[in-house]
Amino acid sequence: MMIKVGIIGAGSLTAEELLKILLKHKKIKVNILHSETYQGKTVSSVWPSFKNLTALLFSAPSMQKIKEECDCIFITRPHGKASEAVKELISSKIKIIDLSADFRLPEISYYKKWYPGTNHSIPELLSKAVYGLPELNRNKIKKSSLTANPGCYPTAVILSLAPLIKNNIIKTRIVVNAFSGVSGAGRIYKENFNLFGDIYGNLKIYKPGTHQHTPEMELTLGELAGEKIKITFIPCLAPFDRGILAISSHHLDKKFTKKDIIEIYRDFYRNEQFIRIYENGYPEILNVSGTNFCDIGFEIDKQNNVLIIASTIDNIIKGASGQAVQNMNLMFGFDETEGLI
Amino acid sequence: MMIKVGIIGAGSLTAEELLKILLKHKKIKVNILHSETYQGKTVSSVWPSFKNLTALLFSAPSMQKIKEECDCIFITRPHGKASEAVKELISSKIKIIDLSADFRLPEISYYKKWYPGTNHSIPELLSKAVYGLPELNRNKIKKSSLTANPGCYPTAVILSLAPLIKNNIIKTRIVVNAFSGVSGAGRIYKENFNLFGDIYGNLKIYKPGTHQHTPEMELTLGELAGEKIKITFIPCLAPFDRGILAISSHHLDKKFTKKDIIEIYRDFYRNEQFIRIYENGYPEILNVSGTNFCDIGFEIDKQNNVLIIASTIDNIIKGASGQAVQNMNLMFGFDETEGLI
Amino acid sequence: MMIKVGIIGAGSLTAEELLKILLKHKKIKVNILHSETYQGKTVSSVWPSFKNLTALLFSAPSMQKIKEECDCIFITRPHGKASEAVKELISSKIKIIDLSADFRLPEISYYKKWYPGTNHSIPELLSKAVYGLPELNRNKIKKSSLTANPGCYPTAVILSLAPLIKNNIIKTRIVVNAFSGVSGAGRIYKENFNLFGDIYGNLKIYKPGTHQHTPEMELTLGELAGEKIKITFIPCLAPFDRGILAISSHHLDKKFTKKDIIEIYRDFYRNEQFIRIYENGYPEILNVSGTNFCDIGFEIDKQNNVLIIASTIDNIIKGASGQAVQNMNLMFGFDETEGLI
Amino acid sequence: MMIKVGIIGAGSLTAEELLKILLKHKKIKVNILHSETYQGKTVSSVWPSFKNLTALLFSAPSMQKIKEECDCIFITRPHGKASEAVKELISSKIKIIDLSADFRLPEISYYKKWYPGTNHSIPELLSKAVYGLPELNRNKIKKSSLTANPGCYPTAVILSLAPLIKNNIIKTRIVVNAFSGVSGAGRIYKENFNLFGDIYGNLKIYKPGTHQHTPEMELTLGELAGEKIKITFIPCLAPFDRGILAISSHHLDKKFTKKDIIEIYRDFYRNEQFIRIYENGYPEILNVSGTNFCDIGFEIDKQNNVLIIASTIDNIIKGASGQAVQNMNLMFGFDETEGLI
Repeated sequence: MMIKVGIIGAGSLTAEELLKILLKHKKIKVNILHSETYQGKTVSSVWPSFKNLTALLFSAPSMQKIKEECDCIFITRPHGKASEAVKELISSKIKIIDLSADFRLPEISYYKKWYPGTNHSIPELLSKAVYGLPELNRNKIKKSSLTANPGCYPTAVILSLAPLIKNNIIKTRIVVNAFSGVSGAGRIYKENFNLFGDIYGNLKIYKPGTHQHTPEMELTLGELAGEKIKITFIPCLAPFDRGILAISSHHLDKKFTKKDIIEIYRDFYRNEQFIRIYENGYPEILNVSGTNFCDIGFEIDKQNNVLIIASTIDNIIKGASGQAVQNMNLMFGFDETEGLI
Repeated sequence: MMIKVGIIGAGSLTAEELLKILLKHKKIKVNILHSETYQGKTVSSVWPSFKNLTALLFSAPSMQKIKEECDCIFITRPHGKASEAVKELISSKIKIIDLSADFRLPEISYYKKWYPGTNHSIPELLSKAVYGLPELNRNKIKKSSLTANPGCYPTAVILSLAPLIKNNIIKTRIVVNAFSGVSGAGRIYKENFNLFGDIYGNLKIYKPGTHQHTPEMELTLGELAGEKIKITFIPCLAPFDRGILAISSHHLDKKFTKKDIIEIYRDFYRNEQFIRIYENGYPEILNVSGTNFCDIGFEIDKQNNVLIIASTIDNIIKGASGQAVQNMNLMFGFDETEGLI
Repeated sequence: MMIKVGIIGAGSLTAEELLKILLKHKKIKVNILHSETYQGKTVSSVWPSFKNLTALLFSAPSMQKIKEECDCIFITRPHGKASEAVKELISSKIKIIDLSADFRLPEISYYKKWYPGTNHSIPELLSKAVYGLPELNRNKIKKSSLTANPGCYPTAVILSLAPLIKNNIIKTRIVVNAFSGVSGAGRIYKENFNLFGDIYGNLKIYKPGTHQHTPEMELTLGELAGEKIKITFIPCLAPFDRGILAISSHHLDKKFTKKDIIEIYRDFYRNEQFIRIYENGYPEILNVSGTNFCDIGFEIDKQNNVLIIASTIDNIIKGASGQAVQNMNLMFGFDETEGLI
Repeated sequence: MMIKVGIIGAGSLTAEELLKILLKHKKIKVNILHSETYQGKTVSSVWPSFKNLTALLFSAPSMQKIKEECDCIFITRPHGKASEAVKELISSKIKIIDLSADFRLPEISYYKKWYPGTNHSIPELLSKAVYGLPELNRNKIKKSSLTANPGCYPTAVILSLAPLIKNNIIKTRIVVNAFSGVSGAGRIYKENFNLFGDIYGNLKIYKPGTHQHTPEMELTLGELAGEKIKITFIPCLAPFDRGILAISSHHLDKKFTKKDIIEIYRDFYRNEQFIRIYENGYPEILNVSGTNFCDIGFEIDKQNNVLIIASTIDNIIKGASGQAVQNMNLMFGFDETEGLI
C-alpha cells in the first residue's frame, strides 16, 4: 500500500523537517505541499538543501481538493490556524495529524487559560482527538483519524516521568527544568528572543511556571496517575539549534537504587524502539540530534535520597516531525520505525 | 599606596584573566608571574592578546624571592599543588589569595571525602583561612592573610540562596541545577569533556549529586542557617565559553509574593555593588559576561507556591579572578570595585 | 577638562557598546542619550547589563537642546537618518562623530551608486567631513569637527593593506575575503540573515563584489597609492557574535621574505598603539575580541611567491564604537588610548 | 547481492560516521569493526548514539581473518598506520577503501615532502591506487581494488575548480581559502587547536600555503589541465562541528557572464547526483550538512571581471565517509546513491 500525503502550512520549519523524513519513507508519496506564501515555487528554490532531492512545488489548493487527493494530511500551521483547516477537512475520510497545539487539550477551558486570545474553530472535536504520544497511547492512535501531535517539551517531560508516575513513586512537588534549542521558536522573529545575538553565549529562561505546554504534561501524567498531577515547568532557551534536555529531581519516600529505577523504566518501556534507557552516563543532546529517540538516564543522590532524571530528544524530530511520522505509521499500519531509523 | 603583586601558576586560564584585571588596577604593580612551563617567555608571546599591553615575562623564582618581592600573591595552581606553595609562603608577611580549592573547606576530612587522592600539604592552616566570599565574609576578609577564593559554582549558588536561608524561608529539599561555560574546565584536555566536538550543540551533565563543590555550598549556607544544610547539586556543561546559570525551585510553606522576595534580597544585599536583583525579567549569561556581577532573579509559580530562583555570574570573573581581586581590594583597604567596574 | 557627550540613536547595539566605553572614560560625562524608542526609560531597564553601572535615562530632546548641552555628539543612527541629525547640528560648535556611512564617501555620486534609495540630507558637507581612521588621518581628525567613523570591514581591510599600497608592493588584482560576526547586522531582524537558525553552524556569503563598504576601501587606499585602486570584496557572515577576520593573498612581482614584510609594516605603523604586527602565528578573532586593537599577520607561500595577509578586529570596537572614542580622544586632545586600554 | 564489510580503525570519528551510513545501506552487512582500543565493547557502549541501532561489537581479529570474512574493507586509521594494514590485506580479493592520505599521492617523493616523518609501508602500491573522486574518476573507481578516498579539503576545492581548469578558463594565480568545521581534526586533542575554548567565537588560520592537502589538489587538477597547476591553499578552522566552505576568486582574461559559468559547470557535471549548481544565492554550510552533496555557486564581480566561486561540503560525509560509501557503491556495482540519499 502506498498512500498519498500532504502538508498544510508547508513553509514552516517543522514542515521542512517533516518533508525530509517523508522523502525517505517507502510507503508514502507526498503530493501536496500547501503554502500560500510559497505557492508556485519549487521546494528547492525556497530551501536549497532540497536540490536534487525533490521536484515538488508548493501550491495552495482548496481544502476540498486536499480531501480528494490525500489519504493523510499533516498540519504544521500555528495554533489557532490549524483548527481552521481541521474544521474543513474533518468530515472526509482523510486522516489528520495536527502538529499545532489545537487538539492537545481535552476542553476549551484549557485553551482560554493557556492560549488566551486564540480562537478555536472547532472545540467540539477536542474530546475526539487522540493525543499522539505512541509510547502511552499506541492503541488509540492506531484507530485515530485526528491525532494531536504532542508538544516538544511535553514529549521529553512526559516520557521521562511516566514510569515513576505510573508506579506511584512520585506524585507531588514536581519541578522540571528544560533546555531547548532555538529551532523550537521556528522561523518567526520574536523580539529579544531568537536573533543570533540574543542567544549566542547565552541561556534564556522564559515563562517559568507559566509555559503553555504545562497542562499537556499535567493532564497526560494525571491520567496515568489516576489523580491530579501538578508541575512547575521552567523552560530555557539554549545556544544550539536543536535538542531538548529535561531535568528533574525527586526526593523519594522510599529507598531505591539506580538499578531499581532502571528496571522500572525498562519494564515500562519494554519493546519501545524509540526509548533508550541509560545504565551508565547521562543523556546528551548530541546523542539524539537528528533522530527520533528519547534517551533517559538517572542518578541517585544517596546522601539526600534524591532521584535525578534527565531526558533528551531532538525537538524537531521526536518533539515534532518524527513523532508525527511515527503517528502516521501507526494510523496506517506501517512499521512504526519506517522512515525514522 | 602601590602594592607589588605576583601570581603563582601564572600559565593558567584563570591567571590570564586575573592578569587582564590587574593590568587595569590603579593601586598595584604586577612584578612576578611564576610559571615553570613558560619561564623566560614574555606574556605576549604566549598569549598574543597581551601584545601592546604588557612587557611582563614569566619567571620561576624561589618562594623565598616571591616572599621578598611581593605584598600579595595569587595562587592559580590546581588543588593539591596550591597548598604546597602556601606552605612555603605562609610564614611571611605576604598576603595570599588562593584560587584553588585547597583552603575552602574547614577540615581535612572533607578533602578526604570530596577530593580523594589529593594530598594536602598543610592541613593545619584550614581553620585559619578565610572563605573569600565578600558579600558574606567582608569583615573577616579585611583582616585575612590567607583567603580561599570560592569555587565558581558555589559563588553562584550561595549568593542565590543566602537570603532565603538566613531568613529561614528554605531549609530542606534543596536542589540546584547549574550550567557552566567550558572555561570552567580550564585549558587542560579532559577526555570526552572539553574538545570542541564534545560540547558544541550539546549539554553535558556530569557528577550529579557528587560534585566536589557541594560541601562549600552546604557549609557556607549551613553556617548562615545555624544548622546543617544539604544540597543536591547537579552541574552541566553548556556550549559557551564563560558564564554560569544556577537555577533552583523551592516549594514554600508560607505564601510570598515576588515583591516580598525581592524585598528580602534587596535588604540582605543592601549596599552590595556586585549583586544585582531583578524586578523584571530573569538573569541571563550575557548580562554578566565579562563582569564581576552576580545577577539574581525570581518568579513565583503561584499554582504550586514554588519560588524559582536564577542567578548568573561570569565563572572566570566573579567565579574566580574578579572575586580574587575583590578580595585583594578588601585585604589591602582599596576601593572594593577598583579594577572591576 | 571634562567634556559633555551625547549619543543620538542611543538605542542601537553600537550605542550600547559605545556607552560601555564612555562610562569608563575619565575625561567625559555622558549627559544625553537620545532615543525616541526608549525615551523616559533608564538604560538599565532596557539593557540589564548596565544595572549598577549608570542611572542614565534615554530622552528625546530637540537638536537645539543637544547643541547647547553637549560638546561632542556621537550619531549611531542608520545611514540616511544620520545626515538628518548632522544637518541640524552642524552650525554649532559641537563636534560630531558619525558612525553611519553618511559622511564616509567624498561625493554624492558614490551614495547614488552604493546606497541607492537613501536620501542624503546635506551632501555639501561630504567634502568637509574627515574620514576617521586615526592610523592614516590622525592630523586631520585632530582638527575635525565632523568625523565620519569608518565602516567595520574597511577598518580591517584598509589597515591590513595600507603599508603594501603605500610602498607600491601591490596595486592590482586585489581580492579580500572577510568574515564578520553577526553583531555587524545590529539588532534589526533581516530575513534569512540573522536569526539564530540562519547562522548557527553556518557561513553565509553575501553581496560578493557588491558590498557598499567597497568604495571606502578603494578610495582610502587609492589616496595612499596616488592612483585608482580596485578591490573585489567578499563578505561572509560567521557564527559568532563579534569580530572580523579579513584575508587577502597577493602574487608578488619581487621576492620578499616574511621578515621584509614585517619590517615594512612595523615601519608604517611605528608608534601606533592599536596596531599589533605578528611575527609568529596568525591573528585570531579571540585575540582582539573586546579590544580596540587591529592585529595583522603574514605568511609567504614561497612556492608561488604569494603574500598572505590576515587582519582581525572587534567589529563593534575598533570597527565602530572604540574607533569612535579614539577619534573623540584625538578631536579633544585627550590621550588617544583613554577609555580604550 | 549482499556483501560483507569491515572497518579498520573503527574507533575513529570517521568510522563512527561511516558506520551510521553503512547501517542504512541495503546491500551490505557490517561484520567487522576492528579497533584495538575498544575491542570487546559494544558500539553502543562506546557511542550511545548507536543504542537500539546495532548490537555490533568492536573486535581485533588478525588481518588474515579480515581477508577471509570481508568483501570490502574501509580503513580509517591515521596516515602511516593505514598503509600497514593495506600491506597485509592487498594480496587478497578484498576491495580496499583507504580514508587516510596514504595512497592519494602517486609517488613516495610527495610523502617525503608533505608528510615528513611518516613511514609508508608499501610505496610500490602508490601507482596502482585509484584516487576516489567519483565525479572525475568514476570508471577507474569501478575497476579499482584499492581506492584512496580524497581528503576533505581537496574534495571541496577540486570539485569547485575542475570545470574551469578543464575548459582552460583559469590556469595560474590560484588561491583558495577554505573554512572547516572542527571535526576535521577528529577526536585527537591538539594543543591550542581543538579544545572548545580554542575555537568558540574564533577563526583559526593554520598552515597557510603549506597544508599537506595541497598536492592532492594540484595533481588532480593538473591532470585535468594537462599541465602543472599550482595552488596557494589557506585553511582555517571555523567554530562549528562539520562542513567546509571553499572560496576562490579568479581574474578572468575573457568576459564571462554568470550564466556562461553556470552552463560550463552544468555541462561538466551533467548527470552528477551529488553536485548541485546554484543559479541564485550562494552555497552555505547548512545546506549540505549531513549530506553527501557538494554545492557550488558563483558570482561575477563585473567591475573587475573576477569570477568568485564558492563550494560547500560536509567534511565528514562527502569529504570522508559518504564519499567512501559512494566509492564502495561504484566498486561493487551498486546504485551510486545507495545509503547516501
